[in-house]
Amino acid sequence: MKLYTFPPAPSPQRVTLFMKAKGIELPIEFVDMQTQAHMSESFKKINPRMTVPTLVLEDGTVISEVVAICRYIEASFPDSPALLGEEPKEQALICEWDHRIETELLLAVADALRNRGQGFKDRALPGALNLAQIPELVPRGLKRIEAFFAILDEQLASNDYIAGKKFSVADITAFVAIKFSAWVKVEVSEQYVHLHRWYKQVSAKLG
Amino acid sequence: MKLYTFPPAPSPQRVTLFMKAKGIELPIEFVDMQTQAHMSESFKKINPRMTVPTLVLEDGTVISEVVAICRYIEASFPDSPALLGEEPKEQALICEWDHRIETELLLAVADALRNRGQGFKDRALPGALNLAQIPELVPRGLKRIEAFFAILDEQLASNDYIAGKKFSVADITAFVAIKFSAWVKVEVSEQYVHLHRWYKQVSAKLG
Repeated sequence: MKLYTFPPAPSPQRVTLFMKAKGIELPIEFVDMQTQAHMSESFKKINPRMTVPTLVLEDGTVISEVVAICRYIEASFPDSPALLGEEPKEQALICEWDHRIETELLLAVADALRNRGQGFKDRALPGALNLAQIPELVPRGLKRIEAFFAILDEQLASNDYIAGKKFSVADITAFVAIKFSAWVKVEVSEQYVHLHRWYKQVSAKLG
Repeated sequence: MKLYTFPPAPSPQRVTLFMKAKGIELPIEFVDMQTQAHMSESFKKINPRMTVPTLVLEDGTVISEVVAICRYIEASFPDSPALLGEEPKEQALICEWDHRIETELLLAVADALRNRGQGFKDRALPGALNLAQIPELVPRGLKRIEAFFAILDEQLASNDYIAGKKFSVADITAFVAIKFSAWVKVEVSEQYVHLHRWYKQVSAKLG
């Protein structure tokens, strides 16, 4: 088993923090996304999607979605702390929030980041397809980030952690997404006191 | 427990077919999305996101992401056929494909559908936020659909079902997404023989 990763980038970072919170280490190979190593012919042979993180199992099976890598790790190390929930309701609420944070917040930050400037020219989305930037996605992304911060703050007004009483993968995804928001110069407004309280708490835990 | 749903729309349909494949029935209330009942003040009190499907549990907990509703049902009815996988690798591959089909195909169809015409004016994305249409997302969506059909065809060239040997939730999501593609007048090209073989098979199973 080997994890191809590049911890400074948000998607790989979700897996790094997931493993850290579970106390698990896996064999790692770094793929330097800054020098576009994930777009090289050699990496394309490992993962044709050219996305990082990529987990390759002993039998050659390739897993390349963050949620699927986390699911594999959770199922493979049942003695480590459960981060995807145990009881049905707990599992569902963690899944609900993790999915919302990815599709409503992380994707919004990615839209705001990738649709301007030369760095992501024709790379408006990750993956094998080259797609032109759409500048209107920048203000839309910024608007969605702000709206989702309000949702998280409201949720954290009555919950210790994002999906309820327990720390879960949803906290990791939100933590990474909020740090990623700084890449598009968005910070959590002072008014979101619950989100700030939670961020300090999770920051202390994840370092 | 009550499921608020509107089976003709793709997201609710994923849950309907999931329950059908598991042989499970739940108390249901229809929310007529065609008359915008999901945007009404009364439905907003049930689910402030104003999205359908919405599952409300006995204790009032609201679950509104398809993946989370399916996860809840899977965990709550352990004697029904497992559609989210059992062994770690199986769970991971089903999660991988289900997530990819949702984010790379279903979202692409939604982009192509919602960013043109009057029907979705200022409703470019579902949810509580009103967002202006971005016409460039229409051709981008169509391009992404075509590219993903090629990926599914390649995957099905060497697998009975999308995530491997067994029928899973990933087949349901792909089946719904392909039917949904017809809403933007995209059909699976004749060249994708494996995708056609699979579609007939799944269509016979799900009806």
